[in-house]
Amino acid sequence: MNIILLTAEDLTGDTCAEIRDQRRCQHILSVHQAQVGERIRAGLLNGNMGSGIMTTLQPDLIIIEDLIFDEPPPPDLPLFLVMALPRPKMLKRVLQTVSTLGVKKLVLMNSYRVEKSYWQTPLLEPESIREHLILGLEQARDTQLPEVILEKRFKPFVEDRLPALIAQTRALVAHPYSETPCPTGLTEATSLAIGPEGGFIPWEIEQLEACGFEGVHLGKRIMRVETAVPFLLARLFH
Amino acid sequence: MNIILLTAEDLTGDTCAEIRDQRRCQHILSVHQAQVGERIRAGLLNGNMGSGIMTTLQPDLIIIEDLIFDEPPPPDLPLFLVMALPRPKMLKRVLQTVSTLGVKKLVLMNSYRVEKSYWQTPLLEPESIREHLILGLEQARDTQLPEVILEKRFKPFVEDRLPALIAQTRALVAHPYSETPCPTGLTEATSLAIGPEGGFIPWEIEQLEACGFEGVHLGKRIMRVETAVPFLLARLFH
Repeated sequence: MNIILLTAEDLTGDTCAEIRDQRRCQHILSVHQAQVGERIRAGLLNGNMGSGIMTTLQPDLIIIEDLIFDEPPPPDLPLFLVMALPRPKMLKRVLQTVSTLGVKKLVLMNSYRVEKSYWQTPLLEPESIREHLILGLEQARDTQLPEVILEKRFKPFVEDRLPALIAQTRALVAHPYSETPCPTGLTEATSLAIGPEGGFIPWEIEQLEACGFEGVHLGKRIMRVETAVPFLLARLFH
Repeated sequence: MNIILLTAEDLTGDTCAEIRDQRRCQHILSVHQAQVGERIRAGLLNGNMGSGIMTTLQPDLIIIEDLIFDEPPPPDLPLFLVMALPRPKMLKRVLQTVSTLGVKKLVLMNSYRVEKSYWQTPLLEPESIREHLILGLEQARDTQLPEVILEKRFKPFVEDRLPALIAQTRALVAHPYSETPCPTGLTEATSLAIGPEGGFIPWEIEQLEACGFEGVHLGKRIMRVETAVPFLLARLFH
C-alpha cells in the first residue's frame, strides 16, 4: 500500500476522512507505522492524489485531516486487454498486476481451455474484483479504477462485441506459433489478447485474426500468464 | 510443464528413462493425458532438448524410450541478477519466474528492509530452491539450471565479492528515485540489482553506486517484486 485510497464514503468533509475498515487501519498502523501529526500520501478513488495529516490513529479508526488532492494520477496505459479467464489462484494476482500496470479496461473471456469451474469462483463477484483492483492501485500509487467485463461465451463476444471494442486500435494476440515478434515502443492505442494456459486453440486464433488481431510471439520461452502480462506490457510500451 | 526434464538418475540407458516420482507421473497422466506410443517432448537437465516415446504409463512408473536429445535449449539471458531476498510466499514465484525467463545466475542478498525471519524459511534449502527452479525450466522449455547464491550480509558481499561478479557487465540498480529511465534493447552482458519491498535504503544505493551500479527507474508506478522482474527483463532485452 504505497498510497491510501479514499472513497466518497470515507470523506466526512472537504478535507477530512475517516477510515474504519480493519485492512487499511492495520496496514497504516503496522506497516506504515504512521505517527499522529504525520503527513501521509493519500488519493481519492477515481480522483486526484495528494496527502493529509493523521490526527487519530486507533486500530478501528484513523482520521486524516487537511487533505489536499493536487496531483494527477499517473497516465493510463493506452491498452485494452482481453484475457482468457485464468484459474482462480492466478486471477487474484493478475487482477492486481493489471491494475498496478495501468490497464484501465480488461475483458475476462471464455476460451476452449478455460475450465468451466473457473467461472464459479467467488473471486468474480464484483466486490471481490474491485478489492483486488484496489490492491493493485494502492501498490502502484494510482487512483483510477479499471473496468472489468466478464464474457462467458467466446463466439458471440468475439463476433458481435469485440470488433467495436478494438476499433481504432492496433490489435495483437500473443501466440507462440506466430512468425512476428512482439513489437516494442508502441505509442498508439493498442488491444492485446492473451490466451489461457495451453494457449488459444487454432479455431480461436482464426476467429481473433478474422476480427482484426495480429499474432505476435515472445520468443522461445513459454511463460505463465502472470509472468506474460508484465512482460508483454513492458515490451509493448516504453 | 511444457517439457519433461530428465536427470541422470532417471536414465536407465542411452535412450531410455524411468520416471518414478509422483509429481511428474501425475502431471504426464492427468494434464498431458499422454498415450502409450505417443512421442513427447523431453529434455536432459543441463543438456539438450528432444523427445521420446511413452511405452509405460502407470501412476508410479512412466517409461520413455527411443529418447533423442538433438535440440539445444533456448539461449540464456545475458543477465546476472542480484535481488534482496523476497518474503517466502513471493520467493517461490520469483525463483520460478527467474528460471522461466532464462536468468542463469541469481544472488539473493540481505538488505535493511529484508526481515530477518525470511532467512529462516525452508524454501532456501538447496533442494527446495532446485525444485522451484526446475518448475520454471519446465514452464519455459529450458534445460539449464540457474545457479543461486545466498548472501546473508550486505556489506561484505557488496564490498568484497560483488565487484568481481559484475566486472565486464553494465550494472544497473532499479531505483524509483533515479533520474535515468530503464534502458531497452541491451545486448551486452548486464547485471541488475532489485531491492526489497520498500526499496533499498539510501546508504545501500550509495554502496551499490560505489560498486559500479547505475540507478534506473521504471516510471511512476511502483511494482511488487514479482511484477518488476518480468517487467524489467522484458524492457532491458528485446
